[in-house]
Amino acid sequence: MIQKLCIANRGEIAVRIIRACKEMGIQSVALYSTADKDALHTQLADEAICIGGPRVNESYLDMNNIIQAACSTGCDAIHPGFGFLSENPKFARLVQSCGLIFVGPDPEIIEKMGNKSKARQMMMEANVPVIPGSKQILADAQEGLVLAKSMGFPVIIKASSGGGGRGMRIVRDEDTYVANFKAAKAEAMACFGDDDVYMEKYLENPKHIEVQLLADKHGNVIHLFERDCSFQRRNQKMIEEAPCHILDDTTRQEMLDAAVRAAKYVGYNSVGTIEFLLDKNNHFYFMEMNTRVQVEHPISEMITGVDIIKEQIRSADGIVLKYKQADIVRQGYALECRINAENIAHDFAPSPGKINFLHIPGGKGVRSDSAVYCGYEIPPYYDSMILKLITFAPTRLACIKKMRSALSELIIDGVHTNIEFHYLVLHAPKFVEGKYDTGFAESYIKELVANGEFI
Amino acid sequence: MIQKLCIANRGEIAVRIIRACKEMGIQSVALYSTADKDALHTQLADEAICIGGPRVNESYLDMNNIIQAACSTGCDAIHPGFGFLSENPKFARLVQSCGLIFVGPDPEIIEKMGNKSKARQMMMEANVPVIPGSKQILADAQEGLVLAKSMGFPVIIKASSGGGGRGMRIVRDEDTYVANFKAAKAEAMACFGDDDVYMEKYLENPKHIEVQLLADKHGNVIHLFERDCSFQRRNQKMIEEAPCHILDDTTRQEMLDAAVRAAKYVGYNSVGTIEFLLDKNNHFYFMEMNTRVQVEHPISEMITGVDIIKEQIRSADGIVLKYKQADIVRQGYALECRINAENIAHDFAPSPGKINFLHIPGGKGVRSDSAVYCGYEIPPYYDSMILKLITFAPTRLACIKKMRSALSELIIDGVHTNIEFHYLVLHAPKFVEGKYDTGFAESYIKELVANGEFI
Repeated sequence: MIQKLCIANRGEIAVRIIRACKEMGIQSVALYSTADKDALHTQLADEAICIGGPRVNESYLDMNNIIQAACSTGCDAIHPGFGFLSENPKFARLVQSCGLIFVGPDPEIIEKMGNKSKARQMMMEANVPVIPGSKQILADAQEGLVLAKSMGFPVIIKASSGGGGRGMRIVRDEDTYVANFKAAKAEAMACFGDDDVYMEKYLENPKHIEVQLLADKHGNVIHLFERDCSFQRRNQKMIEEAPCHILDDTTRQEMLDAAVRAAKYVGYNSVGTIEFLLDKNNHFYFMEMNTRVQVEHPISEMITGVDIIKEQIRSADGIVLKYKQADIVRQGYALECRINAENIAHDFAPSPGKINFLHIPGGKGVRSDSAVYCGYEIPPYYDSMILKLITFAPTRLACIKKMRSALSELIIDGVHTNIEFHYLVLHAPKFVEGKYDTGFAESYIKELVANGEFI
Repeated sequence: MIQKLCIANRGEIAVRIIRACKEMGIQSVALYSTADKDALHTQLADEAICIGGPRVNESYLDMNNIIQAACSTGCDAIHPGFGFLSENPKFARLVQSCGLIFVGPDPEIIEKMGNKSKARQMMMEANVPVIPGSKQILADAQEGLVLAKSMGFPVIIKASSGGGGRGMRIVRDEDTYVANFKAAKAEAMACFGDDDVYMEKYLENPKHIEVQLLADKHGNVIHLFERDCSFQRRNQKMIEEAPCHILDDTTRQEMLDAAVRAAKYVGYNSVGTIEFLLDKNNHFYFMEMNTRVQVEHPISEMITGVDIIKEQIRSADGIVLKYKQADIVRQGYALECRINAENIAHDFAPSPGKINFLHIPGGKGVRSDSAVYCGYEIPPYYDSMILKLITFAPTRLACIKKMRSALSELIIDGVHTNIEFHYLVLHAPKFVEGKYDTGFAESYIKELVANGEFI
């Protein structure tokens, strides 16, 4: 059994993992940068070790320092959280080679699923629908052009090692094709050190729907239903909901089955997510697999009652999954708003600084996963997300009303936040209807700007 | 439909009711004393009206001022919360006579159930077990003595209009009987203006178990299962749990049935609770009915999913109960710790003052219902309870572990609190086993004091 867990992350996910440790009787070791000396995760863990300077490559990405800290504090496992090193197979291998448990899937699986074109190929083998496109890496610009013309524009060129929207180019016609192909390759090389790209038919404003999976090291895989994460600005999710309101039961079941089938095919053995795109004709396609816990995992916890972090730790420890699929009963409705320290009036620019006053709402069906406290100074080096506000209610409308009420009560003074923006979204008819797609957030922002709401 | 609700209370229950209003689309009007100018309920409501000075008889007990404030702000209903005027039939009648809805049962029911000896008689008529004792008010000391000798000591003499442990005397032998009889009568007169007393067989350290009821104005009554509230210091509950761990299914069902039968017999038509005592032989007896919402209602909400405050408001509005008994499914386990600003090292004396720093834990299965914020000054005039920490988990042990973790994270700086005491209790083997009775808290405190834990 894991006795002592090192958390190679910061912010609310580090706090989330520390809380799971406390409840499981596992000692926790927080790692922190010099900028995170006063961070909540640094305070809450049983032990805390400084691993370097404020910039991520000086600390939260410094593999050797992290593993050194874990070993010197007698940890037997490392949890990578999300972002940072969580999907880095080299890190996972290094952790294992030092005799520590990596809380995540096998490094080989991270590697395979991290290579987008390889993942795509495996999904085809597993009979999971993929977006029409190149079977493999594009050999050159010409090969892609022939394919684009045969599928019809628009198409999207994607970095094989990509993620987070980088190394991607949407091409709408033949004239702009070559320039975009070159730009995608150059960005892929700059961001990921690998200029392999592949091509897909571009789906115009689909729904982004993802399936939460739980798997153990004994071949068991189950799903915790789906999440609708279509509310995105520049490929960054801002609001998530579970279940997906507009999904019919047949399509839902097909998607859930496809996700479990995909995970079983690749031998998946931890917590993970399969992301799908749903087009206007109600067809879904595999987009990518996240081989780690996600920001939005709490909404799946709310509708199923399962503690995803605890199950992830147990799975890493080799324990057989305690749930069968039939044990997972979906109940009610959950929403998550990502509260960021950012200035909506300045193109959502990060707004670090000191929180002079903080009031987080509580009460029935209101959950907060936060990394801040009254008087805390948000450092400028990291992601601007400081709090996740989650509501849970028997119906979607009740859940939306609860979120409106919670947002109206939430006070974060001293920095700019997107609270007001969320409040507006929660009243937008298109959001309330649930029919929004991945194009909605940006068009809604334009509408608000045009109406002078952000001034 | 109720459009605007006046909340004749303060603290976390006022906040709880305001949140329900926000979610229901009902305008809320907070009432506050001059000492509560900066209180959370005063800030959160849509409107707030000062109703008088800091002492409760100058404000929260001033019926005329309260009703005046409700009328002048255009409210159509008054919610009394708990304590203060919540079980005062005169107030309920006054509210109704001013054309406002009283959020609670009919005044006649409050009156009948408030008279302990009358309530006892009705329960006997409804075939609900009552503790052996006098059928009615004791005519004189002699009548009681004859009865006490026939039942056997110990017995308890109780004020007919009593509550909160006042006007009560336990008598352990014949020698001390007369003095105790006189003392009970004198205290009853002083506290309640009524020296009627009755007698019951005294149960030595029973379990205190209560059943949460929901009823509408159309004859429908259902239960939301039971709570174990046996952890009490000087008759004040400190920790509550739901369901009751040690109750066997047969006894549980008998108790739930008895509670519903009792409520139906008296024509009960709001949210309420029937409190029972369970003796060492697994026999339960009616103790009293609370004709209002209770402090510990959240744990019943956690295990059933029902929003008790919303249902209470709907019921007052004449709406038919939307649940049938079969809809109420019990799930998981919930605990509540009442966090008080009090000094455990000085006999739990109230510790008002300024909260310099506050950190309330969040995350999965952790709920807080609080009336405080960072920088808030707790006034010295009211109850010392400032926050309810509630945890919910699939099993009792997981729920206890979650509460330990949450308590270890909770920080309230600037005033003394009972956080550490709760933390100790949550580790006490007798509590963890669930076998504690109403005598446990005080004997445990003595043990801690003897061990120097409180110094």
